[in-house]
Amino acid sequence: MFEKIDLSKKLGKKEYGEIVPTLRKRLAELQRESQKLKIPSLIIFEGWEASGKGELINDLILPLDTRGFDVYEIRDPGTEEIQRPFFWRFWIKTPPKGKIAVFSHSWYHRTLVEKNSELRGSDSSPINEINYFERELFDDGYLIVKFFLHISKSEQKKRFEELEKDASTAWMVTGRSWQSHRKYEKYQGAIETLIEKTDTSAAPWIIVEAQDRRFAEVKVLAKTIEAFERIISTASMPKVCDVMEPLEYRIKGIDSSMLDKADLSKAYSKKEYEKRLDKLHDAVRKAQFKAYDKKIATVALFEGWDSAGKGGAIKRLAQCMDPRGYTVVPVGAPNDIEKAHNYLWRFWVRFPAAGHFTIFDRSWYGRTLVERVEKFCKRKDWERAYNEINEMEEQLVSNGTVLVKFWLHIDKDEQLKRFEARKNDPDKSWKITDEDWRNRDNWDQYKDAVNEMLYRTSTTYAPWTIVEANDKNYARIKVLKTVVNAMKKNFE
Amino acid sequence: MFEKIDLSKKLGKKEYGEIVPTLRKRLAELQRESQKLKIPSLIIFEGWEASGKGELINDLILPLDTRGFDVYEIRDPGTEEIQRPFFWRFWIKTPPKGKIAVFSHSWYHRTLVEKNSELRGSDSSPINEINYFERELFDDGYLIVKFFLHISKSEQKKRFEELEKDASTAWMVTGRSWQSHRKYEKYQGAIETLIEKTDTSAAPWIIVEAQDRRFAEVKVLAKTIEAFERIISTASMPKVCDVMEPLEYRIKGIDSSMLDKADLSKAYSKKEYEKRLDKLHDAVRKAQFKAYDKKIATVALFEGWDSAGKGGAIKRLAQCMDPRGYTVVPVGAPNDIEKAHNYLWRFWVRFPAAGHFTIFDRSWYGRTLVERVEKFCKRKDWERAYNEINEMEEQLVSNGTVLVKFWLHIDKDEQLKRFEARKNDPDKSWKITDEDWRNRDNWDQYKDAVNEMLYRTSTTYAPWTIVEANDKNYARIKVLKTVVNAMKKNFE
Repeated sequence: MFEKIDLSKKLGKKEYGEIVPTLRKRLAELQRESQKLKIPSLIIFEGWEASGKGELINDLILPLDTRGFDVYEIRDPGTEEIQRPFFWRFWIKTPPKGKIAVFSHSWYHRTLVEKNSELRGSDSSPINEINYFERELFDDGYLIVKFFLHISKSEQKKRFEELEKDASTAWMVTGRSWQSHRKYEKYQGAIETLIEKTDTSAAPWIIVEAQDRRFAEVKVLAKTIEAFERIISTASMPKVCDVMEPLEYRIKGIDSSMLDKADLSKAYSKKEYEKRLDKLHDAVRKAQFKAYDKKIATVALFEGWDSAGKGGAIKRLAQCMDPRGYTVVPVGAPNDIEKAHNYLWRFWVRFPAAGHFTIFDRSWYGRTLVERVEKFCKRKDWERAYNEINEMEEQLVSNGTVLVKFWLHIDKDEQLKRFEARKNDPDKSWKITDEDWRNRDNWDQYKDAVNEMLYRTSTTYAPWTIVEANDKNYARIKVLKTVVNAMKKNFE
Repeated sequence: MFEKIDLSKKLGKKEYGEIVPTLRKRLAELQRESQKLKIPSLIIFEGWEASGKGELINDLILPLDTRGFDVYEIRDPGTEEIQRPFFWRFWIKTPPKGKIAVFSHSWYHRTLVEKNSELRGSDSSPINEINYFERELFDDGYLIVKFFLHISKSEQKKRFEELEKDASTAWMVTGRSWQSHRKYEKYQGAIETLIEKTDTSAAPWIIVEAQDRRFAEVKVLAKTIEAFERIISTASMPKVCDVMEPLEYRIKGIDSSMLDKADLSKAYSKKEYEKRLDKLHDAVRKAQFKAYDKKIATVALFEGWDSAGKGGAIKRLAQCMDPRGYTVVPVGAPNDIEKAHNYLWRFWVRFPAAGHFTIFDRSWYGRTLVERVEKFCKRKDWERAYNEINEMEEQLVSNGTVLVKFWLHIDKDEQLKRFEARKNDPDKSWKITDEDWRNRDNWDQYKDAVNEMLYRTSTTYAPWTIVEANDKNYARIKVLKTVVNAMKKNFE
């Protein structure tokens, strides 16, 4: 493809002077319109060294309202970043609704520069991760514009030499610059493959002929305008195209039920419980230190029926750990800032650094549970969520994080007993709300949702553990044992 | 996931007798409804050996109108199949609109049985090919239902032994059956990974607990009904959600133009032409025989402006070849049968067997050219087509096929000259129609479409060759030379 790009494209001063004010005005209008429609946008600039990324980004943001965008410069990963899955540093930078994030270099930087060799296979994991990331944002209504600034080898040489001549810019050209320059053809092949594999209808690439500064500026402005106009014309259409709820035609018991297999009679006596608890507390503590030492991160998430004992189990797990090494993240309804982002954003930003332990009290599975049953999101959203969650967990696990997922399971009678007990206990009555009773009325719908969640997200890399929790002693011991075993398995 | 499946599910005779007639009646209704709405469906059955695929397929098709479905049994590939890209045998079996194709085994068979080892990597090419295939059909409005019939190792043993006891069925259980049986756990791991990687929202998996025959039948019927109801409720909604045409805001010359780079003054004198032609004819003939001998397939496709000389160039290429070894496929507007399939279907079915040479006179690029400009398809359809075509060509090339793609380029003046000449020549006036003149009026729109096509589908594995065709001699020589070089390169 590169060989067919016409790098001789130029724009005269006069023509440039005529068109640019119109483009700037239009872009400013579109920014306001996209703010009104709450469209989040990502505009990324990749390209050869000295192809003019900095200048073109300046040209682009000049007409924009400064409160509406952020510019990120992506270089080698920092200490916080190196400890987490690769895409963490981009997830945390995804813009809220109505805002624009501009990236100088991006998630392509690693594949282009850091690990060129990974591109050799016909489909490498980094490419799948990129396409997954972009598709997920696209499905969620994000605009993604990707520019690659293209200059020839001889043009790059000319620019390097000019920079070197000027004392104030000579530092920009390093040994590494010249080294890459000499390998221009090799890089070009790698870039071409990368662009091919990631040129999707969700996020197509735009190659900018960047030899002529004026031409490049006009192309960047015009193509950004085109992309905004396109998404605005789509976003402002009536939203009648969501998939309708299917006719209900269900037969009880037909769906795979993982919950029904659980033997809820399992129990430990107080004595047995205390004996095991002591031993396990000791084991957790040791495992925590070892994980810290080995720089292995751990995530434990807890889901379960109301009053199934999540709080108590989390307490027994946390109380034996060094408080400097763990965090408990309670997950409730999203706040305004969280609502303005993709639903996974608030979890990505909280993933633990290497060696740390994060406990999620409820989690990203909310989308497949409460949001599904209470219709807080659309059917197509929670249906897509299974894949999206699996992809996220795979990235977490393949980055070396230990991930354990608990469903605390009790039966309906046991829940009633606990609700009644709470209601009648003045110290605990605050724990039980009208919402809990309402959820209880929807038990069957929740059960369907739980079963489908367990079925679609029990993967080889991140299986669910169903905890039989009618007996609190048994449940707490099983949680601790599962955590210890998962951590130990990872040490091996 | 498998470990959490409850295989003890059963259905009593009475309950079964009550529910099944209702299900059958409903399914028959839904088949008629899906015929009316022209929904094509694929229902696939995978599962353990002796899990009851044959019987359950019989149960499923019993209530259906026999004119509305086909059943395919997929086993080891036949001689026709082994010579073509893997997905060829499934593409040619994709059902036309309104029909149901039922598969006993499917595109999963290879990965499950033939090449278990390929599953080891975290993302292997076969899995990407599967997800691409299913997503493309889904995007085009196909229903895909995927059943995996699950039985335990001990149940399989029991069934094998029962089959062996009966002389009429003993042949079904072979040494390979028992061999696989002994590796049940190993296979289970591989299956689990495969299901995980291909359990998408476009085509989710349904695991059927198949220990109890009655339960399995009811689940298959009920889940098929659910899937039909879902797609019917979507398909019968008003279609107002197509992406709107974007506001037009284009600046001339801003898009990457590959055509503008072509030097149309290139020409050969008659003498030079004839000398080269002789040599190249000889080379093509030799290359054809060698490709036949080495079992390498070749595809050459020709696109270009009206009157650019496609016919003449194809003739010069074909005339030197052994007619038993090549086919010319002229591509016009699709006929009714072709229209009832996905737009790529008619090309898949015509891909050459090993050693053969197929020339496409116009091609699958029609979607990005005439269908785009004349608005025969929607914007989202031709936008998606670039990826779909690239994926198809990648499968072709990675299967060892030589693929050359020609755009025959002339300028607008040259076209006018040729049109006039044809009009005035009584032998050639039939060659020029009103449509040709209309297309000529849309030259600029076509040019944009051609440029975008060249830009998005000039890949490393399947680059376009732009043929400067103002001079017919030059064009014909360049075509022959390109074909010979591409074939020779592949011999190395």
